[in-house]
Amino acid sequence: MENLQLWQRYQDWLYYHAGLGLYVDISRMRFDESLIETLKPKFDQAFESIQALENGAIANPDEDRMVGHYWLRNPDIAPTEDIKNEIVSSLQDIDTFVQKVHTGAIKPPQAFKFTDILSVGIGGSALGPQFVAEALALDTAPMNIHFIDNTDPTGIDRIFTRLKDRLKSTLVIITSKSGGTPETRNGMLEVKAAYENQGLDFAQHAVAITMTGSKMYEFAKSGGWLAIFPMFDWVGGRTSELSAVGLLPAALQGIDIHQMLEGAKIMDEATRIRDIKTNPAVLLAMSWYHSGNGKGEKDMVMLPYKDSLLLFSRYLQQLIMESLGKEKDLDGNTVYQGIAVYGNKGSTDQHAYVQQLREGVPNFFVTFVEVLEDREGTSIEVEPGVTSGDYLSGLLQGTRQALYENHRDSVTITIPQVNALTVGALIALYERTVSLYACLVNINAYHQPGVEAGKKAAASILELQNKVVEAIESASESLDITTLADRSGATDQIEAVYKIVRHLAANKRGIKLEGDFSKPSSLKVSAA
Amino acid sequence: MENLQLWQRYQDWLYYHAGLGLYVDISRMRFDESLIETLKPKFDQAFESIQALENGAIANPDEDRMVGHYWLRNPDIAPTEDIKNEIVSSLQDIDTFVQKVHTGAIKPPQAFKFTDILSVGIGGSALGPQFVAEALALDTAPMNIHFIDNTDPTGIDRIFTRLKDRLKSTLVIITSKSGGTPETRNGMLEVKAAYENQGLDFAQHAVAITMTGSKMYEFAKSGGWLAIFPMFDWVGGRTSELSAVGLLPAALQGIDIHQMLEGAKIMDEATRIRDIKTNPAVLLAMSWYHSGNGKGEKDMVMLPYKDSLLLFSRYLQQLIMESLGKEKDLDGNTVYQGIAVYGNKGSTDQHAYVQQLREGVPNFFVTFVEVLEDREGTSIEVEPGVTSGDYLSGLLQGTRQALYENHRDSVTITIPQVNALTVGALIALYERTVSLYACLVNINAYHQPGVEAGKKAAASILELQNKVVEAIESASESLDITTLADRSGATDQIEAVYKIVRHLAANKRGIKLEGDFSKPSSLKVSAA
Repeated sequence: MENLQLWQRYQDWLYYHAGLGLYVDISRMRFDESLIETLKPKFDQAFESIQALENGAIANPDEDRMVGHYWLRNPDIAPTEDIKNEIVSSLQDIDTFVQKVHTGAIKPPQAFKFTDILSVGIGGSALGPQFVAEALALDTAPMNIHFIDNTDPTGIDRIFTRLKDRLKSTLVIITSKSGGTPETRNGMLEVKAAYENQGLDFAQHAVAITMTGSKMYEFAKSGGWLAIFPMFDWVGGRTSELSAVGLLPAALQGIDIHQMLEGAKIMDEATRIRDIKTNPAVLLAMSWYHSGNGKGEKDMVMLPYKDSLLLFSRYLQQLIMESLGKEKDLDGNTVYQGIAVYGNKGSTDQHAYVQQLREGVPNFFVTFVEVLEDREGTSIEVEPGVTSGDYLSGLLQGTRQALYENHRDSVTITIPQVNALTVGALIALYERTVSLYACLVNINAYHQPGVEAGKKAAASILELQNKVVEAIESASESLDITTLADRSGATDQIEAVYKIVRHLAANKRGIKLEGDFSKPSSLKVSAA
Repeated sequence: MENLQLWQRYQDWLYYHAGLGLYVDISRMRFDESLIETLKPKFDQAFESIQALENGAIANPDEDRMVGHYWLRNPDIAPTEDIKNEIVSSLQDIDTFVQKVHTGAIKPPQAFKFTDILSVGIGGSALGPQFVAEALALDTAPMNIHFIDNTDPTGIDRIFTRLKDRLKSTLVIITSKSGGTPETRNGMLEVKAAYENQGLDFAQHAVAITMTGSKMYEFAKSGGWLAIFPMFDWVGGRTSELSAVGLLPAALQGIDIHQMLEGAKIMDEATRIRDIKTNPAVLLAMSWYHSGNGKGEKDMVMLPYKDSLLLFSRYLQQLIMESLGKEKDLDGNTVYQGIAVYGNKGSTDQHAYVQQLREGVPNFFVTFVEVLEDREGTSIEVEPGVTSGDYLSGLLQGTRQALYENHRDSVTITIPQVNALTVGALIALYERTVSLYACLVNINAYHQPGVEAGKKAAASILELQNKVVEAIESASESLDITTLADRSGATDQIEAVYKIVRHLAANKRGIKLEGDFSKPSSLKVSAA
């Protein structure tokens, strides 16, 4: 297509939201107008079903719950007075708590003020707070945040080393909706032990964010923790950034959470419009559909040209892949849906894998995120009339053009700045796009049945571990792996038993493994 | 396949390196023995061509250069005495320099010692050092490292805020092989200006890593910088981690670079073996080939179950995608090769996108990285007989099993610890696998012709910007975008001109943009 035709297409499809200063440009997706006719009836149905959700319909039949993250930023549209009041009072509680922490009215027993936050949570309880901290927290923030988002002992120890002298002024936030996520439970127990090792009263440092009545709730309540903030049944983990999960740590870091909520509310309104061309989430959902043929045939490469948006792709991996990656559609057909998401930031990634994007396997489309403001204050010139920010801008334009010339499509989202308003808006934009796309491909975006299988398998490995240890301890001689599996009541799980003893032996857990390590069947296991 | 058959397959294919304690398990890739017959002749050819490379053949005909990163860890096999001596003396220079920095023999003018490192570089000059810092640097390291790996002004300012009071004790390393990478040049100029703003002598803080005679080399030399370390013509950016590029910052952080080199040397030897089953790089290359049908049909999802290996996937994105993502094969056929790589860490990613991996679009295979040692020292029990590390181990096993049951294949690499030896070995393992796979699919792994297009397009945008500014300044009235494009000599580049003025106006660069922002053609541009 000639440049001038492209310019016309650019103008024809350009979306602009004056209140947010946000643009969406899908002119470099090679769909044609017939796609709109095809998708129109699906979008009409999607608008209906989203309206029903917003009105309080049960959206997640598996779990028999409503899906209401939009109420968080506009409590007036909540389906009941009770829900509205819960939201409003939770927000007030956050504001009050944060103010007291900042002024020192709430303080740790052995320090003047809380200086740091240690967030313990995983998945939806970590990815949003991490993204927002990286995007919006200043180095001059009133408190610095650290994350334990895994059950890796070395990773946990690294955080303890970092915070060693400041544990006594660290506020610990434990986030777990169900209160039963093992990684988070483990992190909490490790942190609690670290406090006790230093003779500090953990409860005086601890805050829980969890559903009322959960295991974690009872633990926090009976332990006399500083505070408990609610997670609502009707907010899923991957859409929880604008609930207490995201708002509490953000506010503690001095981020304007009311602006985040405002940005999301404005975007929610903009994405309720029942029209193709004037609804930015519809434009994105249509682009995704076009690109992957409604089957996720192409990966989504996220390239924000701004360092502070580095974690946006990681946040979106969960929001998009956990929502859309489904085996069955709503009619029970096997569909293997989903869209793979990856990316870091531009122009850095140009020096990593844009070689493949431009020339290699054409299995993706790119989403550029452009930020108009380069920096606060003025810039030096790196060449006559040219700044570092001009380079960043030129590199984005150049890459978009070079990819397009080689038939690699892209979407470009432009925002004026990375600030609380635009970050809130981006979150809401993608939440809505996911909802719409899920309707287009007829899947349930709000459950995650596939996560269970791995958890169950892991639980059975841990059960097996205890049996294996028992069998080793009660044996009078060293055993080979096959015999050990027999004695552990797991005759056909020899490989699992082998992995268990290899891991235990490596960690000096009272088990000795001898023989030729390249031949597992030659190994002998005994109590050390 | 039944569990016991799988256990047999596991043992049949298990690779173990006693010196490194490293395992490679490809039993969960569903290839059959016939693949070996198919690939055998290709591997034989690959061994020949890799042997030729190691002997000093010109491997990169585009750039007429040798490819010799293996010589870095075993100078004795370098093809000439000169090269051998260069390597040895560069390593000695690094050791000496680092020792002097650590003792304070080399010190900044206005501080007692260097406390921090600021690394300015992008792509191959940043991804390795970032991966290694995250994997191996201790929080108790003698110096802390910070990175400017982009030309984003806000990102640069964030680093300055962080280092504000410590610029005077910060050692700046500027890494650019050609010395002409604009992002790095821009970063260097921004850093230099920041030093000058604080009245500090930049040259007394600055070190260059660049090719002898490059622009950056001349700049550093004439500026009287502290030191210049060489990059060798025969080391490509993406295989430069074990050259001065990676070794200097690592050694400054107190990482044992001789162990890194040793790990790589051992792995290089292990991957020279001309056999399928006893060469770990062959096993990996075969797995990649099988999974993607030799055409990159499946993405590679990297899941190291260890927080400190978080950046391994980002490092591999460059190594693999820039090497393999090629339009043409060596015979000039259009092949659109490549393998998309993404991933963060387990078990964290299980709470992000394993839902899609288990149930959704089956367009990937997983590489698990398992680390046997949980932590230094002992662990608390989070349940009777169970530690946080047991959970991590169980979750890996469980996820591998749950994926396999749903016909999602995986490879598992197991190492005893994340340490300098194993990290060096992992780097060398993937370098070799990339070389082998490139031979299997008949492409040149050592050039990156596709990167140029975006750079050229960006350069022409910046040229256009200067013309646009000139046209605006010389106009006596406000102009619409079309007229402005005309007057800038870019009649058919209206969109590019629009983007330029939108960016300049947002940055108060003496340009005013008025009108309806949702209708670019309505906008009027004038000098502010």
